Amino acid sequence: MRLTTFGESHGVAIGGIIDGFPANFPIDLEKVQYELDRRKPGQSAIVTQRKESDTVQFLSGIFEGKTTGAPIAFSIPNEAQKSADYDHLKDVFRPSHADYTFEKKYGTRDYRGGGRSSARETASRVVAGAIAKHYLESLGIEFSTYVDQVGSVRLRDTSFFMHDAIESNPVRCPDAKTAERMEELIREVRKDGDTIGGCVRCMIVNVPVGLGEPVFDKLHADLGKAMLSINAVKGVEFGSGFSSVEMRGSQHNDLFNEDGSTQTNHSGGIQGGISNGMPIEFRVAFKPVATLMQAQTSINQAGEKVELEGKGRHDACVVPRAVPIVEAMAALTLLDFYLEYRARR
Amino acid sequence: MRLTTFGESHGVAIGGIIDGFPANFPIDLEKVQYELDRRKPGQSAIVTQRKESDTVQFLSGIFEGKTTGAPIAFSIPNEAQKSADYDHLKDVFRPSHADYTFEKKYGTRDYRGGGRSSARETASRVVAGAIAKHYLESLGIEFSTYVDQVGSVRLRDTSFFMHDAIESNPVRCPDAKTAERMEELIREVRKDGDTIGGCVRCMIVNVPVGLGEPVFDKLHADLGKAMLSINAVKGVEFGSGFSSVEMRGSQHNDLFNEDGSTQTNHSGGIQGGISNGMPIEFRVAFKPVATLMQAQTSINQAGEKVELEGKGRHDACVVPRAVPIVEAMAALTLLDFYLEYRARR
Amino acid sequence: MRLTTFGESHGVAIGGIIDGFPANFPIDLEKVQYELDRRKPGQSAIVTQRKESDTVQFLSGIFEGKTTGAPIAFSIPNEAQKSADYDHLKDVFRPSHADYTFEKKYGTRDYRGGGRSSARETASRVVAGAIAKHYLESLGIEFSTYVDQVGSVRLRDTSFFMHDAIESNPVRCPDAKTAERMEELIREVRKDGDTIGGCVRCMIVNVPVGLGEPVFDKLHADLGKAMLSINAVKGVEFGSGFSSVEMRGSQHNDLFNEDGSTQTNHSGGIQGGISNGMPIEFRVAFKPVATLMQAQTSINQAGEKVELEGKGRHDACVVPRAVPIVEAMAALTLLDFYLEYRARR
Amino acid sequence: MRLTTFGESHGVAIGGIIDGFPANFPIDLEKVQYELDRRKPGQSAIVTQRKESDTVQFLSGIFEGKTTGAPIAFSIPNEAQKSADYDHLKDVFRPSHADYTFEKKYGTRDYRGGGRSSARETASRVVAGAIAKHYLESLGIEFSTYVDQVGSVRLRDTSFFMHDAIESNPVRCPDAKTAERMEELIREVRKDGDTIGGCVRCMIVNVPVGLGEPVFDKLHADLGKAMLSINAVKGVEFGSGFSSVEMRGSQHNDLFNEDGSTQTNHSGGIQGGISNGMPIEFRVAFKPVATLMQAQTSINQAGEKVELEGKGRHDACVVPRAVPIVEAMAALTLLDFYLEYRARR
Repeated sequence: MRLTTFGESHGVAIGGIIDGFPANFPIDLEKVQYELDRRKPGQSAIVTQRKESDTVQFLSGIFEGKTTGAPIAFSIPNEAQKSADYDHLKDVFRPSHADYTFEKKYGTRDYRGGGRSSARETASRVVAGAIAKHYLESLGIEFSTYVDQVGSVRLRDTSFFMHDAIESNPVRCPDAKTAERMEELIREVRKDGDTIGGCVRCMIVNVPVGLGEPVFDKLHADLGKAMLSINAVKGVEFGSGFSSVEMRGSQHNDLFNEDGSTQTNHSGGIQGGISNGMPIEFRVAFKPVATLMQAQTSINQAGEKVELEGKGRHDACVVPRAVPIVEAMAALTLLDFYLEYRARR
Repeated sequence: MRLTTFGESHGVAIGGIIDGFPANFPIDLEKVQYELDRRKPGQSAIVTQRKESDTVQFLSGIFEGKTTGAPIAFSIPNEAQKSADYDHLKDVFRPSHADYTFEKKYGTRDYRGGGRSSARETASRVVAGAIAKHYLESLGIEFSTYVDQVGSVRLRDTSFFMHDAIESNPVRCPDAKTAERMEELIREVRKDGDTIGGCVRCMIVNVPVGLGEPVFDKLHADLGKAMLSINAVKGVEFGSGFSSVEMRGSQHNDLFNEDGSTQTNHSGGIQGGISNGMPIEFRVAFKPVATLMQAQTSINQAGEKVELEGKGRHDACVVPRAVPIVEAMAALTLLDFYLEYRARR
Repeated sequence: MRLTTFGESHGVAIGGIIDGFPANFPIDLEKVQYELDRRKPGQSAIVTQRKESDTVQFLSGIFEGKTTGAPIAFSIPNEAQKSADYDHLKDVFRPSHADYTFEKKYGTRDYRGGGRSSARETASRVVAGAIAKHYLESLGIEFSTYVDQVGSVRLRDTSFFMHDAIESNPVRCPDAKTAERMEELIREVRKDGDTIGGCVRCMIVNVPVGLGEPVFDKLHADLGKAMLSINAVKGVEFGSGFSSVEMRGSQHNDLFNEDGSTQTNHSGGIQGGISNGMPIEFRVAFKPVATLMQAQTSINQAGEKVELEGKGRHDACVVPRAVPIVEAMAALTLLDFYLEYRARR
Repeated sequence: MRLTTFGESHGVAIGGIIDGFPANFPIDLEKVQYELDRRKPGQSAIVTQRKESDTVQFLSGIFEGKTTGAPIAFSIPNEAQKSADYDHLKDVFRPSHADYTFEKKYGTRDYRGGGRSSARETASRVVAGAIAKHYLESLGIEFSTYVDQVGSVRLRDTSFFMHDAIESNPVRCPDAKTAERMEELIREVRKDGDTIGGCVRCMIVNVPVGLGEPVFDKLHADLGKAMLSINAVKGVEFGSGFSSVEMRGSQHNDLFNEDGSTQTNHSGGIQGGISNGMPIEFRVAFKPVATLMQAQTSINQAGEKVELEGKGRHDACVVPRAVPIVEAMAALTLLDFYLEYRARR
């Protein structure tokens, strides 16, 4: 299975093509749109207030409500294009954005809203990921993806939280008290015209044993790549992750139960690059959003110092909207491995 | 460019094929062997005392000392095969190894020393990586890769350390005092028949601006995948990494100097998935080695509890030998992007 | 570079995404539409009289008239959808179409106009190919693609014909007399409610020496695959092709001139899978169109014999409209190799 | 599944790595060697009299006689290296060989026996293909591959011939009389120090319905690419092939029987790029061998005219030894599609 995406934040549309999806699977368009709405701007008071309806239109590959095995193409028109908002950025490189690297790589760039480098592109991933997730759910596989850290506020409970708990607040942190503290922090940071980082945790249960390839295409290697391809991600860890560094083998080893399950899950559900039937668990670190609502010094294409005002409508913290993106990328990766797994049996 | 590897730890040989390497590049075989020796067992008192000469033989693609553009094949014979050491493991699944997942995925496995899942496979990566690194060095690109953490002993200095400093002690930590403490910790852990985790840090300078693709194949996404494909790796972070989560945008943003360089490098040399000319910086977390020199309870293929003795010759901490592997995978990934970059100019 | 296409003949739209196209190349939209018009139904009296405006809309990747290096997405709305024309085919497998194989492969199919298997899909290839061709033309590479056979009427002159000569008649055979005989044959066949096969010949000049990979990805292997992927193609031959079978080596060998060019071009511009600077020459065989304007016996999904009427608006001979498709696929393949070639220099 | 090969005709060894082959399949090493012997020089009076034992050694991926799912690596040492035979070619470009294109592409070349461009590379394909073929045979799929044309001597009988009939004579043409005439022609041509072209026909029965992808990766597109990647191939045709050009649709259409089989097989077992359950049938055209046992005029690297003697030990006609190569490439392609097919069911 392969997803190819297209589109710039202020072009005609964004969208993509899903190749190799199994035939005869019923697509519930409302469920797809629901996922997209979870990523959409303006969904709550703590995210950017840009208004984009983000309505997906399917162009091919679905006939009489079911997939046909042909490529599934879809497009999401760009509506709320206040391109004029970006005219002042035409010659300016914003700090910690992709303006400078795009200009140097391509010798040109669509400066309106970041063009191709805009996180708006991830809406296409959410559409494709929703379809992949529904397919995996039809096999019994379930996802629990939520915010477990904003700034230094961290949820230590690593349970499998249900969807309703996650969606019970705008932060998408399933613990009400922690969510409240996160929300407060986001509001405070935003008041300062500033931004803050965060972490998304993902847990996937009922994954069959045997997904993943033993060397270069280890399951967590591809999941990791998928996560690191999401805008603003600076790190990813599986199971015990960075904390394993300080552990001893005698603490870290996951001892077997007689049924092949393990007593602990420091491995994060993956051993030797292959799923072992335990929950797949990982965390993804997002840096603070680079666009600030405060003045910054930068340079223009001529290499001159310029003062950059804080303008536009932006997120103070990206993780609440990143939850469906992380889930989508995980689902796409997992389905790909699942189809390969089926080929070999 | 593509590396394909083969081989099990106790088969005839391991090796690989490098496809798409540029023609007319002189190969210094001694330099390749030198890198392999840095990974080799028995190189110092703190690593496994298995004796393997690990001598690489090139089979194709090099003519009169230079690459021809044809596939470069190489093989490393397996010598120190004490396969009998593994007979007691024939029916046993070792905890936190790939025994169980391989058995379930393939319905069979080469149980001798982990077979294909053995970290011995990484020797092939080191050979290919050495060639890639030498090519990149001919372009002025330089690597500084070293151990920056063992257990809770961590080096906080993030300078670009020279090769000689890194190689000045068996831990491959360039700070003598920290290296000493790490070495002590490793010896202590080993005395207990136990193992300990660690981190490898990699810094790459003089990388041209423009390497990496803007969406799925971001430079750090592919570097991250390469790192996560190394045995025992549980996490990877770029630039500010997981610590960025607690930072504010106003602290984290890398402000530009007039020449396009940045005053800080929280981005780790990559913005929007594309190299920005600043040093590429990342850290890789390795879990403690799963093979212990102490008894553990496990299960066999029949699902019965068995007692597992601690036998064989193993590392108490993997990171000193992981340094050339991390460097090799970084070089392979970077060269691939460099060749693509050249295609578009 | 990679083209991904989507769309069924009677769905919302067809289109595609071009990934990896070089940045900063000016796109002349009229020239792209011109190529599409050469493939379009209803363009002359001898092709199908379906009315489809086939207007391409670009959705991304072009900014201020030039490519940005981002994916170029485009879509062509489906207009003349007389889907009712196909209701009688819902349960019927048309002979020598893909109805039966699609049904068996996917367990379902979009029966309207062949769905994904319709040659309408090739319009997307023409759009992408036009862009690739214009890029190659900017490097001095030129194409001469024309019909050299319809039924048993064959043009034996293998010159490089100019575009105007090719476009001087609806058959796209550059020799007026031969074109007339071909046109007559097509009219005659159509009068009988029947169809006829044909050949397209392609010649490409000024290709640099060195395109193509020496083993599996030989230049003509990939060109051949590209041609065989076009609907109705049954064979492809390069240079002397099938006639080489009856030749002796002493006749067939292309002897060198002192400048490295060759006195003959039986090799068709490719030696050892790599372009040698001589014109690339190949021929593509198209079978007669499977849809007839006469009754045929067939079966339905229940395996019962059914009588199939000849209905709809179809071509009696596909090659006049196939010329831009062959050219497009050749251009896409060549550009891909050209970019790889540039990476290695 | 993927085959990667390496090796030059006069290097240390040739060989390859097979990735993605199913686990638990028993490998009969003698059967693999048997196929290799069918390709080997010196096997009969009408082929080259070079002596090479061509003994394959497996390096990995097979444990206790069965595949493990890990990469299967193998190597064939180069023995009969009369490299001195090639010293006179160091600076010379042989006509219709790859000497000139390799030199221009890579700026260097291994001139001994053609180096990487030597047809010796195809021995690796035969090894991998033998394994693929045995796997397909275990599913009931059977191959009939034979010489059906040498020069103008052509076998018109297109039956499925049994292996014994094909192997009953050194030409590998299953009709004794035709084989005799072919053999005579080859002897005659060789006496003249000349060479002659030929065709190999391949027929594959019991292929399940549904192999092949509908657009770019049509089954015959990939089979065609596989064939065109074999040294000396100038053309390929499926089913009715080039003769379809002169046929009318009413003659050419394959009408259905009630069980879904067809009354004729002009489609060659593939409709819309997907296997339809009928025999897959194609023909491959090989040009006359370029190395002659007579003097030819050529040029050297300085662009000066030189006289080229006819030396060495070469085939006068390549098709008898090409039969196992065509079969191997067909088996590799088919198995790849078979595994994909299984993933989607």
